[in-house]
Amino acid sequence: MDKSNISRATLGRLPDYLQFIRDNITGETVSATAIARGLSLGEVQVRKDLNMICGAGRPKIGYRTSVLTQALETALGTEHPASAVIVGAGKLGRALLAFDGFTAYGVSIIAAFDTRAKEIDGSCGEKRIYPMEELKEYCQAHDVSIGIITVPAVAAQSVCDMLAGCGITSIWNFAPCKVSAADNMTVKNENLALSLAHLYMTEKKA
Amino acid sequence: MDKSNISRATLGRLPDYLQFIRDNITGETVSATAIARGLSLGEVQVRKDLNMICGAGRPKIGYRTSVLTQALETALGTEHPASAVIVGAGKLGRALLAFDGFTAYGVSIIAAFDTRAKEIDGSCGEKRIYPMEELKEYCQAHDVSIGIITVPAVAAQSVCDMLAGCGITSIWNFAPCKVSAADNMTVKNENLALSLAHLYMTEKKA
Repeated sequence: MDKSNISRATLGRLPDYLQFIRDNITGETVSATAIARGLSLGEVQVRKDLNMICGAGRPKIGYRTSVLTQALETALGTEHPASAVIVGAGKLGRALLAFDGFTAYGVSIIAAFDTRAKEIDGSCGEKRIYPMEELKEYCQAHDVSIGIITVPAVAAQSVCDMLAGCGITSIWNFAPCKVSAADNMTVKNENLALSLAHLYMTEKKA
Repeated sequence: MDKSNISRATLGRLPDYLQFIRDNITGETVSATAIARGLSLGEVQVRKDLNMICGAGRPKIGYRTSVLTQALETALGTEHPASAVIVGAGKLGRALLAFDGFTAYGVSIIAAFDTRAKEIDGSCGEKRIYPMEELKEYCQAHDVSIGIITVPAVAAQSVCDMLAGCGITSIWNFAPCKVSAADNMTVKNENLALSLAHLYMTEKKA
């Protein structure tokens, strides 16, 4: 299976399938029908999703529970999560650092970096906030592939360049400006203000 | 002009146009060409955006600066921002409450509510965190139209129902689960974990 072909919509349902099986299925086999019913989803959709990550189930039987569980874990990357770091340990940075919902999708935020690491409390729960000077060495030592930018707009592009220099290949930018990187990197500019404004305008349309 | 027809992409550029005019244009008129050059954007695109919010400019002259500025402000709603409240004053809730980038898009987050308002510090900068009991009265008194949910998944749907009962019409949900509301409401489920996972998968595809 090529993980990269999984659509965002399918990916969004996989953690639910995995959770449902873990919580409810004790037998050796599990069918798409049972999962669809349990989660109130369309059977055709569930069948299609499962087919994508685990091939077709056996008629009238479904999937071996252990095989499907394994396939879901592999697709989600939960066994070998990708490592991410945050640059900018302000309110939003620390909120993302503390949020534990990322691991269900195979991504683990392992540390944050900030120019003021020594002034602000150097930890957030069990995760540490390091000074910027340690960024490169840390990223290389921990095989970090994702960098999350939560610094003010004026510093965002230079942080992005810095992350590129650390070998990071995916950038998720929350600064209120766009950042750009070399073509071999993936950049997602997350404009929360724009999302909110657009939600509000969509409402007025309805 | 019907604001609701503005696309998300156009909306995202309007604050830049407004900022550029405020910072750089001192003359009585301003052209799409000047804005496009100043912001390194395509002229056709800028012309189309401005045409949508302010009609066509005059050939070889462009727009009256004051008229275009006013049209941008109206389109963005910056003069009469919509009011939003946050329910759930944990790390993410307080990060959003403190973020001031929303006003550029005509939305103002004016307060937060939390069941533990009395235990946690009852303010965040200049904005206050109120107990849940005051939600309904506050929303009605301040004509709040947007509710932002940053509570744990288990409480999200009941908070959504509560917000609906307060006369709120747009819901922006950050809890790691979907919430649903009546058809006359607009709901946006923001799955940050899914965004991050999909960013990472897109990268592996490239």
